[in-house]
Amino acid sequence: MESKTSNLIDLIKSRRSIRNFIYQKIDKETIRDILECGRWAPSGQNCQPWRVCVVIHPTVKRMIAEQTKYGGIIESAYVNFVIFIDIERGYDRVKDLLAMGAFIQNILLGVHAKGLGAVWIGEILNNKEKVNEIFKLPLDKFELMCVISVGVIDNAMEEKRKKERERRLIDDFIDLF
Amino acid sequence: MESKTSNLIDLIKSRRSIRNFIYQKIDKETIRDILECGRWAPSGQNCQPWRVCVVIHPTVKRMIAEQTKYGGIIESAYVNFVIFIDIERGYDRVKDLLAMGAFIQNILLGVHAKGLGAVWIGEILNNKEKVNEIFKLPLDKFELMCVISVGVIDNAMEEKRKKERERRLIDDFIDLF
Repeated sequence: MESKTSNLIDLIKSRRSIRNFIYQKIDKETIRDILECGRWAPSGQNCQPWRVCVVIHPTVKRMIAEQTKYGGIIESAYVNFVIFIDIERGYDRVKDLLAMGAFIQNILLGVHAKGLGAVWIGEILNNKEKVNEIFKLPLDKFELMCVISVGVIDNAMEEKRKKERERRLIDDFIDLF
Repeated sequence: MESKTSNLIDLIKSRRSIRNFIYQKIDKETIRDILECGRWAPSGQNCQPWRVCVVIHPTVKRMIAEQTKYGGIIESAYVNFVIFIDIERGYDRVKDLLAMGAFIQNILLGVHAKGLGAVWIGEILNNKEKVNEIFKLPLDKFELMCVISVGVIDNAMEEKRKKERERRLIDDFIDLF
């Protein structure tokens, strides 16, 4: 068990946001394996309130890219997961959003485990209604959560921009009882 | 890379809610390793809006247990993570809750990787104000997200109650563009 743990902790600790990609195809099987990680996320009452638009086509990418100042990242990523909550499947706003966070994290870990890079783009929520329009998803049924841009890592560029990732120390956020 | 992925996907797929524990101590180092997984969760603007009360003492366990119909699980678990969002650290309600979901999922995966069992208890939110009172946490600063009960798995009991975990098929929640 110990080695399995170290792998997981290493995987979790070594994951970071990747914003520089080289243009290289990612095969369908890899994309499905990543989505499979999301699929197994837990949710309250097992309601699984997720919906994902998987965007590879350049024209659609461009349309989404126009909705955020991080559009350059979206266009340079081979695939973008545009993630919505399926409101009718949910049952409790807070619990549903927590489930969506678990879903997103499983996908980010899946990408990282595949040796690929991803970044969670939240700023696009400023234009979430327009993103619904692109996919013709009714606003009362689907709400944008984020875009996850995924691609093959441009190691040279990432190396240049490398900076220490910072996290609060454990003792800063726990109390013992 | 491929083997790392398979391990992760296996880990993610094999994780399930565990509600039957045997009474056995979990050492402090293991508990810290699990919290370390949470620590590395991503959050918008890296705000890390989490706060965890780590509950091992039987009296405190009993007090929390009284706030949910799943109190029996809380009392039988060696340790309970009572997870709050630190509202002042957050900056956007939706994004903060998604970050909390990522935090919770990392902890659940950490528990599973350690060969231990856990269950995410959300029903206790019905009495969230009372849980704040127990820890003397002001309601305007901290909001209960869930309790994660963690213990050594009672395999005999779990075997009896084993049922197929169900998830929607990938093609049921994705659209390709």
